[in-house]
Amino acid sequence: MYQNDLLLKAARGEKNKHIPVWLMRQAGRVLPEYRFTRSKAKNFIEFVKNPDLAAEVTIQPVEILKVDAAIIFSDILVIPESMGLPYSMQEEKGPYFPKFIQHEQDIQHLRIAQTEDYVYVLNAIQLAKKQLQNRVPLIGFSGAPWTLFAYMTEGKGSKTFSTAKKWLYARPDLSHQILQKITNSIIHYLKDQIQAGADIVQLFDSWAGVLNKDLYNRFCIPYLKQICDAITEVPVIIFPKDGHFALESVQQLSCNVVSLDWTIEPSTAIHLLKGKCLQGNADPCLLYADDKTIEQETIKMLQAFSSVPYIANLGHGLYPDINKEKVKLFVDIVHSFERSNV
Amino acid sequence: MYQNDLLLKAARGEKNKHIPVWLMRQAGRVLPEYRFTRSKAKNFIEFVKNPDLAAEVTIQPVEILKVDAAIIFSDILVIPESMGLPYSMQEEKGPYFPKFIQHEQDIQHLRIAQTEDYVYVLNAIQLAKKQLQNRVPLIGFSGAPWTLFAYMTEGKGSKTFSTAKKWLYARPDLSHQILQKITNSIIHYLKDQIQAGADIVQLFDSWAGVLNKDLYNRFCIPYLKQICDAITEVPVIIFPKDGHFALESVQQLSCNVVSLDWTIEPSTAIHLLKGKCLQGNADPCLLYADDKTIEQETIKMLQAFSSVPYIANLGHGLYPDINKEKVKLFVDIVHSFERSNV
Repeated sequence: MYQNDLLLKAARGEKNKHIPVWLMRQAGRVLPEYRFTRSKAKNFIEFVKNPDLAAEVTIQPVEILKVDAAIIFSDILVIPESMGLPYSMQEEKGPYFPKFIQHEQDIQHLRIAQTEDYVYVLNAIQLAKKQLQNRVPLIGFSGAPWTLFAYMTEGKGSKTFSTAKKWLYARPDLSHQILQKITNSIIHYLKDQIQAGADIVQLFDSWAGVLNKDLYNRFCIPYLKQICDAITEVPVIIFPKDGHFALESVQQLSCNVVSLDWTIEPSTAIHLLKGKCLQGNADPCLLYADDKTIEQETIKMLQAFSSVPYIANLGHGLYPDINKEKVKLFVDIVHSFERSNV
Repeated sequence: MYQNDLLLKAARGEKNKHIPVWLMRQAGRVLPEYRFTRSKAKNFIEFVKNPDLAAEVTIQPVEILKVDAAIIFSDILVIPESMGLPYSMQEEKGPYFPKFIQHEQDIQHLRIAQTEDYVYVLNAIQLAKKQLQNRVPLIGFSGAPWTLFAYMTEGKGSKTFSTAKKWLYARPDLSHQILQKITNSIIHYLKDQIQAGADIVQLFDSWAGVLNKDLYNRFCIPYLKQICDAITEVPVIIFPKDGHFALESVQQLSCNVVSLDWTIEPSTAIHLLKGKCLQGNADPCLLYADDKTIEQETIKMLQAFSSVPYIANLGHGLYPDINKEKVKLFVDIVHSFERSNV
């Protein structure tokens, strides 16, 4: 079906001689081509909501970087907006919600996201699929329930998300109500993405790292489980960023792939995540190094993961000031590598 | 020598029936008394540089919260300033350095911090010691080399410290030069603090968590080792915040105490940090919970650490909006607890 389906094969547990690679934020400011397309939209939100532009930047890294998958260009905050909490994206400062969940009565006003709320994402997926012409699979995605909860209760980015965590500690009952509404929205959203053409989906739990094992087991795992159990059509990737304490519990879920940040030792992940395809986990800052260092460290990573099904990636999104040539080098090194043990 | 030397006994490896407790940022905005004293200074920097005011807020938590140690009120950025990089503290945004290390030639202009640069800290220590009248020990502190390096090369706070890490990846040679100058400054600073009266010192490696095991071993451990080896007069506490990957290496150092953030499972820490006194590691957000939850979770923590020398604390500093009564409750719960196994 695909000219290159290495990624889907890895996600389904195959170990092949060649390792697939894509990069978080590959459709992003690291590409001059992206910045050109981005300049056509008035602001970030209008950019995300324009299916033509979103599809255009989705395809760019496939053509320019030769990655083995496209990921639909969008934002994890589409779901909070769809649930009734619109946001703006402030330069340097990140997302800002003029209205967010502050009181018990705010919860009943939260809608379950419906197709019409995020139809622009589905349109972008359909356009991107058409333009991809089955060259590589397309990844759909959503924020994970806790991470969306964090923004919806904090109202903005935060280093500690202490306001969001205050809900978990002070009002666990209401927190569960909110998380359930978010989870229902995510399931609906991912199923729609899959119907529109997404071949695999990733859940970004970007703020896993501010929790701990107990909180993760209580407020994340039950909702991730609902999603994993509901999404049976395509493979599911979970990325518990900075959630070193979460790996044992994530292993129990029916997801196919676990994406790892760069603080996780490959050997630890292989030990804790038996039966999973692993994804990651180069430090994005490695791409600031000279070519020789990039080559050495990337090969070290590929070798460390060579005993398991594996998708090469970074441990976090590309930073905007990374040189495009270094990104290409990273992709090329992965493509030149051959597993010796298959 | 002290009316209450539980903390020093624990740091030296004793397990006693009663467990000492203090809290990071106990001299802080959580206390109305602190906010009153703070209002006497024009800005944060002048507050830090005023020994009378600094000593006053240092003593407050001993009298109000009944903690088992005072920690000198100061800031980790005293050392960057002493080395030639003054900073300002911006409301909500954190530290800002008008001048920071951007080019190779900036390195030669970095001074090794000298006594006269930070004499106000030493004066505050002397005043605080006098006012403490040997009730409890006084903790001195410094930022750890990497964490100070991070601010000195990034120029401000950051979620990723990608500019700072770019130095490690792109110019490891120059990074080591900077780290060595910082380390020399820290040793000088801590020895002066000890001479002024500090009974124990803590190294805050607040940004350990953006590194990984390899980077920590290359750019942190050798400098922490120099400090631990140089400071033989008093016990040393190391706090590698979010550095779950660093614990095995920190165990090899001659420090007495390792402070843990709340993402570390007590059983993991006990396993990886044999021979150390452990400190921590309640989630500061626990103090947003109702009294019953605080009691349950605190006792669970105390029991989890009861097999090792231990100092109760949080896994990070108190957040300013935490209720003072909840902090008192936390301290009281620790004081009411008795180890059953000694």
